[in-house]
Amino acid sequence: MGGARPTPDRERYAGLFAQRTRVMKSSAMRDLMALTERPEIISLAGGLADTTLFPAEDLAKVLSHMAAESSARALQYAPTEGMADIRPALTEVMAAEGMTVDPDEILVTTGGQQVIDLVCKTLVDPGDVIIAEGPTYPGAVPTFSAYEADVVQVELDADGMRIDVLQETLARLDAEGRRPKFIYTIPNFQNPGGVTLSLERRRELVRIAQEREILVLEDNPYGLLRYEGEALPTLYQLDGGRFVVYAGTLSKILSPGIRVGWTLAPAPVRQKMVVGKQGSDLNSSSLSQLMVAYYFRERDWHDYVRRQADVYRARRDVMLDELGRHMPEGATWTTPQGGLFVWLTLPSYFDTTDLLARALQHNVAFVPGRAAYLDGRGGQSARINFSGVHEDDIREGIARIGAVVAEQAELYASLTGSTPPGAGRGRGAAPPGAAGDVADAGAPIVPLRTAGRRRGSR
Amino acid sequence: MGGARPTPDRERYAGLFAQRTRVMKSSAMRDLMALTERPEIISLAGGLADTTLFPAEDLAKVLSHMAAESSARALQYAPTEGMADIRPALTEVMAAEGMTVDPDEILVTTGGQQVIDLVCKTLVDPGDVIIAEGPTYPGAVPTFSAYEADVVQVELDADGMRIDVLQETLARLDAEGRRPKFIYTIPNFQNPGGVTLSLERRRELVRIAQEREILVLEDNPYGLLRYEGEALPTLYQLDGGRFVVYAGTLSKILSPGIRVGWTLAPAPVRQKMVVGKQGSDLNSSSLSQLMVAYYFRERDWHDYVRRQADVYRARRDVMLDELGRHMPEGATWTTPQGGLFVWLTLPSYFDTTDLLARALQHNVAFVPGRAAYLDGRGGQSARINFSGVHEDDIREGIARIGAVVAEQAELYASLTGSTPPGAGRGRGAAPPGAAGDVADAGAPIVPLRTAGRRRGSR
Repeated sequence: MGGARPTPDRERYAGLFAQRTRVMKSSAMRDLMALTERPEIISLAGGLADTTLFPAEDLAKVLSHMAAESSARALQYAPTEGMADIRPALTEVMAAEGMTVDPDEILVTTGGQQVIDLVCKTLVDPGDVIIAEGPTYPGAVPTFSAYEADVVQVELDADGMRIDVLQETLARLDAEGRRPKFIYTIPNFQNPGGVTLSLERRRELVRIAQEREILVLEDNPYGLLRYEGEALPTLYQLDGGRFVVYAGTLSKILSPGIRVGWTLAPAPVRQKMVVGKQGSDLNSSSLSQLMVAYYFRERDWHDYVRRQADVYRARRDVMLDELGRHMPEGATWTTPQGGLFVWLTLPSYFDTTDLLARALQHNVAFVPGRAAYLDGRGGQSARINFSGVHEDDIREGIARIGAVVAEQAELYASLTGSTPPGAGRGRGAAPPGAAGDVADAGAPIVPLRTAGRRRGSR
Repeated sequence: MGGARPTPDRERYAGLFAQRTRVMKSSAMRDLMALTERPEIISLAGGLADTTLFPAEDLAKVLSHMAAESSARALQYAPTEGMADIRPALTEVMAAEGMTVDPDEILVTTGGQQVIDLVCKTLVDPGDVIIAEGPTYPGAVPTFSAYEADVVQVELDADGMRIDVLQETLARLDAEGRRPKFIYTIPNFQNPGGVTLSLERRRELVRIAQEREILVLEDNPYGLLRYEGEALPTLYQLDGGRFVVYAGTLSKILSPGIRVGWTLAPAPVRQKMVVGKQGSDLNSSSLSQLMVAYYFRERDWHDYVRRQADVYRARRDVMLDELGRHMPEGATWTTPQGGLFVWLTLPSYFDTTDLLARALQHNVAFVPGRAAYLDGRGGQSARINFSGVHEDDIREGIARIGAVVAEQAELYASLTGSTPPGAGRGRGAAPPGAAGDVADAGAPIVPLRTAGRRRGSR
């Protein structure tokens, strides 16, 4: 009995796998996690809030109060929709984003990630079109691909998603008789692009959604992590909640480890998401929900957000300085007004997937740009994170990437006999805190290509 | 801006919904939760461990140690596969179930529920056959239906799933050219049936799985909550992990609120489940995983399981006594050797869905039997829980159900002019602790019907 270990035998099980597994893509970001856990690696690949900033003694106090008063409830099942206790906290966060919401309309989820999953579960059949930004959140790739969606990506520029390209894309889809199921956007400090959707474009996007009766999934993890400039209204607020589904999360302003997110959606959509969630995980952690309720009651959560923002602002500035110092001529990068990421684009002879392999040998990691596309684009770009890494490590990390880049540039020169443009000291970088979001204001943050090439999803 | 509240407009959004939403069924159990939260209701509908048995001061201590030592990690993302810290704890639980496993093969999930979801995600295309027990876990209904599976249910008797009926079902599916994607079973103290798969049948089931190369999903939430009799080996252990996917959970032996489950699966299957999980929720709560690690290190978890078992055994005995006192002639119920549930079957003129509506008026709830079938069966039966309710409430709850049953019986008599069989005091009940699992040993626990009627899944 027992003892005989399973022999992995792909052939044996292959006939059993669902169709979706043929197109399911893993998240490059997640796959990198194991690698980048090695202490000698400086990882700029994460999308991490720096949880060492949270005072351990505060957590200990909040949790022991919670346990003393509400142990049995923290350990028990909760309604699928979420506990009443956490609703005031989430409502406060949204109020800080300028949103007026009915707490009873909140569906609590297992992180913001589950909102994306449940929206797909509710709306997407195999082959259905989702419009996303190009680049888009790398963590959405395994979700979109699991639902066998045909993801059409619309470029960004310094003002966020290009609405003119969106219009062209919608017209083309119309002509093909295809109606997109939803438009996925991260308007604030986009992941990975770092850019922010302008107010004018927010109004246009909402108008398009209302006119065409298309749902928009507004993913807003970083809205409160703004380091300069004025906050803009959410799409949800501009729309009044008719066509905008809102995804919120505490992952970046409190903790990703507790897995607490939430959504607001039109009632018929939300009701189906609740049934979807019953099947996925019954309910989100009661322990986490009550921890949040107690934390918001006992501590000044605004203060913690401000303290984080101060630290991340300084780290961003260091990163932008270092990019200026170490990146070659022809490289561009975004200057985010908030959030966690800078999007770096190298001259056309670079391939960041290859570059990552070399970078890992030099003990530094980033997310290669292809991870942010479902259509193969992004090979010249990289997502680099500044929030989760100390300033010294940012300096060292960017210097190491710079060294690998210079090495590649020399290799290119020796192979082609030509001198690559600027393998030396930095040019083309936007000064930190500049008004524009990109090095060359107005330019697309990725090389212009035809938007929304179709991808056979089966 | 803002202000205008969304008007629910089913027509407007209907065209956007995915195909699967047409067949997605919500869990009757979950839908009952909101209703049964009213304090005047005695709910025998839950599937709850009694978390008031867990000492609040223990939880406070464990959590404050964890926070003091590991705050930043508890608040941070974790690998999708789960944290290293929790693996010894889960390995210990499986050792107590008689299983030898490699800790590195464990995939940590968001409750046992997510195992069912990820197995479906990996294996099930719309229209694919899943074989389940009849009755089956009501919480699997929203999952199976979301994947548009064709669920074929095989009856139970006192010794668990009827392997002869399974064989007939497999032969019939063979003749139709259909290969089931997996067989879903809860071998110990089945939910909702209360019966346990005999050792002989375990061996037969494993042999069938190996011969036919069919996966079995073994869901084992209650294995350690045994109140009498000897533990039987898990299917996973008998099989050696070749065709059995194992689903474990801490929901019943520690806490459902922390949402910690896990799975063991053949490597090619597990790898796809990991990608599926990336898309669903990135990783399970780090806070919960570390809480478990600290709890297992600092406290005697075996002792807590024993204390729970003592309490639940006594509650079971009270429930069985009361059923004997209040149920009419012709009613039968199972005598579980462990777990949380008794499965009650009333004479053929009862409909437990109607009965529930009346029972709620009398402030008592149970899960109607139809919730445990995807094919409309179960109308005479009910799942009644004894673990989550104090003995006095069990007495009062069963008395109230008895009163509603008697009322229905009288109504039947007055409408048909005949005396229903035994609307009075109990008969047909198996004595608690009897060797057999059902009142009439050897009889099926639900009226025999043709197993596995096909259900159009679209």
